[in-house]
Amino acid sequence: MRAAVYRDVSKVRVHISVSVDGYVAGPDQTLQNPLGEGGEGLHDWVVALKAWREPHGLEGGEVNASTPVVEESLANVGAEIMGRGKFGGGPGPWGDDPWPGWWGEEPPFHMPVFVLTHHEREPLTLSDTTFTFVTGGLEAALEQARTAAAGRDVAIGGGAEVINQSLVAGLVDELELHVVPLVLAGGARLFEGLGPELALEQVRAIEAPGVTHLKYRVLN
Amino acid sequence: MRAAVYRDVSKVRVHISVSVDGYVAGPDQTLQNPLGEGGEGLHDWVVALKAWREPHGLEGGEVNASTPVVEESLANVGAEIMGRGKFGGGPGPWGDDPWPGWWGEEPPFHMPVFVLTHHEREPLTLSDTTFTFVTGGLEAALEQARTAAAGRDVAIGGGAEVINQSLVAGLVDELELHVVPLVLAGGARLFEGLGPELALEQVRAIEAPGVTHLKYRVLN
Repeated sequence: MRAAVYRDVSKVRVHISVSVDGYVAGPDQTLQNPLGEGGEGLHDWVVALKAWREPHGLEGGEVNASTPVVEESLANVGAEIMGRGKFGGGPGPWGDDPWPGWWGEEPPFHMPVFVLTHHEREPLTLSDTTFTFVTGGLEAALEQARTAAAGRDVAIGGGAEVINQSLVAGLVDELELHVVPLVLAGGARLFEGLGPELALEQVRAIEAPGVTHLKYRVLN
Repeated sequence: MRAAVYRDVSKVRVHISVSVDGYVAGPDQTLQNPLGEGGEGLHDWVVALKAWREPHGLEGGEVNASTPVVEESLANVGAEIMGRGKFGGGPGPWGDDPWPGWWGEEPPFHMPVFVLTHHEREPLTLSDTTFTFVTGGLEAALEQARTAAAGRDVAIGGGAEVINQSLVAGLVDELELHVVPLVLAGGARLFEGLGPELALEQVRAIEAPGVTHLKYRVLN
């Protein structure tokens, strides 16, 4: 298979904002408030950046120590895998007129996105992003994503469940935590279900306004 | 009271090693293994340092980016508060021939230490460290520690329960996390019982071998 050829050159990477108490979304996640109570605050640091605003079609923004980190997190990524929660639309079958997701007519991904779901759905192309809905599980999605990425890296975009499942399965090569000085006290917890068998090597730490970027290599 | 005079000049500080999943000790803490399964690994980075070995009466050791952080964590501290678990000796009344603690004949504190306990005990002096056993609770211990520190800072030494209780009570001014690339998956969890009302401001982040030092100001 083509995906197998790419396995040695293409990394699987996770870059995720996390509260100082270890949550990637706050408590009481709803369709109206997908990041849960207080969860929006996890992304204040990135939303302020020009490096984030530009691919999201927004004007202006800051340049600071987080800029090269965000640029690097986007560079050389050829496909993204995400859970259905990050795509949006709620649980259950998609229905006849399925919801197009949280991301609007111009999704910020600009690459093939593979959405993990239990319910079949035709691919959806919005601008230069095609969402492919994968019902065969995480490893099937990774095969497809590797092929689509054609040698570039694959990002696991979240939420926590998909990231944790990827870590448990030993699929992740690099894990970067953007640690934000927020206490969420509940919600979607990173590292849930993982144990000491997850061996991490600290690659670097970068201090930036309102966030610290901790990058780890996963030693599988 | 004298302690009240010192309140404006003396800080209450926490410096604690924490796993990347938020634990300051591993699961299954016992008298034989007080840091729990895998918990010893939280302190590998510091035990290797000359700055730690010297006050512990040990030879040799490394000098690296953690050195000034450890030196700063020890500087200007005039007293320490710790839970009974960190002092040692197990639960219940102390008995007639009470255990002298984990710390040997030459405890590494070199300052007055206030041990929170539910059971009365006479003060214990070992070398230049006097352990005073406080049954009146955390705030009473802090009053005594501030007086003993005489204008210098007070360190809350742990464990997690005492630190969390101090944070809940709004007593802590500075919180420094030494984030270690270990997944402990259970044990004593930092920030347990705390919520978004704990407002933290990131002061700095320092990358060092095998650890990142994240320092926060607590905005009470």
